[in-house]
Amino acid sequence: MQLSCPLPQLDFDVITLGHGAGGLLTNQLLESGVFDLLKNPLLDTRHDGAVFDLPGRIAFSTDSYVISPVFFPGGNIGELAVNGTVNDLAMCGAAARYLSLAFILEEGLSMQEFWDILVSIKFAAERAQALVVTGDTKVVERGKGDKIFINVSGVGSVHPMAQIDRSRIRPGDQIIASGYIATHGIAIMSVREGLAFETTLQSDTTNLNHTVFRLLDQFGADIKFLRDPTRGGVASALNEIARDTRLGVRIRQEAIKVHEEVAGACEMLGLDPLYVANEGIFLMIAEAGRATHILEELQRLPNGADAAIIGEIVEEHPRQVVLHSRVGGRRVVSMLTGEQLPRIC
Amino acid sequence: MQLSCPLPQLDFDVITLGHGAGGLLTNQLLESGVFDLLKNPLLDTRHDGAVFDLPGRIAFSTDSYVISPVFFPGGNIGELAVNGTVNDLAMCGAAARYLSLAFILEEGLSMQEFWDILVSIKFAAERAQALVVTGDTKVVERGKGDKIFINVSGVGSVHPMAQIDRSRIRPGDQIIASGYIATHGIAIMSVREGLAFETTLQSDTTNLNHTVFRLLDQFGADIKFLRDPTRGGVASALNEIARDTRLGVRIRQEAIKVHEEVAGACEMLGLDPLYVANEGIFLMIAEAGRATHILEELQRLPNGADAAIIGEIVEEHPRQVVLHSRVGGRRVVSMLTGEQLPRIC
Repeated sequence: MQLSCPLPQLDFDVITLGHGAGGLLTNQLLESGVFDLLKNPLLDTRHDGAVFDLPGRIAFSTDSYVISPVFFPGGNIGELAVNGTVNDLAMCGAAARYLSLAFILEEGLSMQEFWDILVSIKFAAERAQALVVTGDTKVVERGKGDKIFINVSGVGSVHPMAQIDRSRIRPGDQIIASGYIATHGIAIMSVREGLAFETTLQSDTTNLNHTVFRLLDQFGADIKFLRDPTRGGVASALNEIARDTRLGVRIRQEAIKVHEEVAGACEMLGLDPLYVANEGIFLMIAEAGRATHILEELQRLPNGADAAIIGEIVEEHPRQVVLHSRVGGRRVVSMLTGEQLPRIC
Repeated sequence: MQLSCPLPQLDFDVITLGHGAGGLLTNQLLESGVFDLLKNPLLDTRHDGAVFDLPGRIAFSTDSYVISPVFFPGGNIGELAVNGTVNDLAMCGAAARYLSLAFILEEGLSMQEFWDILVSIKFAAERAQALVVTGDTKVVERGKGDKIFINVSGVGSVHPMAQIDRSRIRPGDQIIASGYIATHGIAIMSVREGLAFETTLQSDTTNLNHTVFRLLDQFGADIKFLRDPTRGGVASALNEIARDTRLGVRIRQEAIKVHEEVAGACEMLGLDPLYVANEGIFLMIAEAGRATHILEELQRLPNGADAAIIGEIVEEHPRQVVLHSRVGGRRVVSMLTGEQLPRIC
């Protein structure tokens, strides 16, 4: 992909403090490619913000990305940031339309690395059919940051049929996971400095908005709640649902898909895949009688082939998540405590 | 103000990596006050994003704040962040309505400092009549950040009479500065480690949206362009206008207000106040025949008492800003080069 977006000719090959000072160097950095690369009529106004109309219900979300390392198997912080915010909007039942992009760069970041990240941002935004319309660039001294932190905020149009609202969740509702769990977290762990194993695993970072929108087209209000189980993993996301609904969550271990390599790495590291961060999957709470239909449709859509019903909402054990194991045992799955995987997103 | 918002009882007194891991500690940090402090119906849904209606034209802006020191005379990074994004929206002719709030915390930040910043955010948002509706909290290891970085993005409603568009700027249009320049930058410089002077100066950080809206009510399309001259100062903001309009900008030194103490500090430090960052003022390009009326009204509004017409748009010297000095000299004022004041916002 990057063949079509070569690094522009520049007078500098690393980021300096001057690039964040708001003067000539900041302008050179932006003019010398950033604006051209991400070109669209709203960004082209180059004002302090973008102005547009967006009728109907609007969703608004933000996330800052501090993942380390910045480049990892399957992607880099740029596309992760776009996909992450696009997916947060998708979990509100919204299609991302307009994104903001704010960089905190560490003095000394190579221009080539910055450019590679920008190119990934461009393509990730295109794939999500969202426009980067406003932005900001700050630079901090060496040792006061870590290469690059990115904030992507976004506004999107909520699907007219969406009724994503956890207060609609009832006992009997089914829990669907859209794919294999724990892949992103273990892919990152595999390249973290000082770790003793390597895998061929890649992060599954991707946008989920098109898939979610197709499901909303067809099933509307039968989709009661959506959540992407990023930091804290599936266990923390389900615990939040149990806490907020004051209902119980029951999941079946045999239904939860974990790649063999991920399971092996988790065993070696003493991690439970239920707590490992995900980027390319979502959890759905679906109306009891419609869950099978939704699942069948999801399995035909991009990023949904491995979807499965992994459990259900129950009246028993309110506010608790209980795992039924393959061998017939049961255990309470609590929220993540401590810091299993710092800076995973 | 902080008397009414005491630090809640907590099991921890500093931020740890676990507070950014998305599990129990993250939830404790948020539950133990953040959500209560910033309480509103949209934030209370605690979903991945906020959902609302916002008819009419919408403005959308983002800024990350990395100011050092975090606490400074006249404010802290929290209110600076809210005011900064509120003002970026105001420069689009919009009233901030909904804000996002994303923290990158450095491990070891004291909970008391974080709380003081949060309380400032609360009051700054209230003063701007904007709601914090969605957020994110990340934690990075000690030495990979610098206490706290904050991103505030915002969406606002554009004033129905606003026609803020630099393509409408014509020769003869007048340039209004809403107050004294260079105050914020010098207030920060005065407390930067290793600097040899001290002043009683305070940052002028404030929200400008109510003042701008009142002017738009009355003067609408006669207000052609607005810009807050933050990083890079008045000189860089005017140079961008000259570059983008391909017209000349003429400013009169005698009309540009600089506090005596600021001028003294600039002289001592070898700085030109035209390049020093501002937070509490804006520049306006006003229709020639209406500028005096606008000025008179602005002088009656909050933060406008010291407003002045500082220059005009001219056909001569296209793309250049020329300063007419008190003693009759002329000099070209170019865009800021280099990094006069890193991390000033």
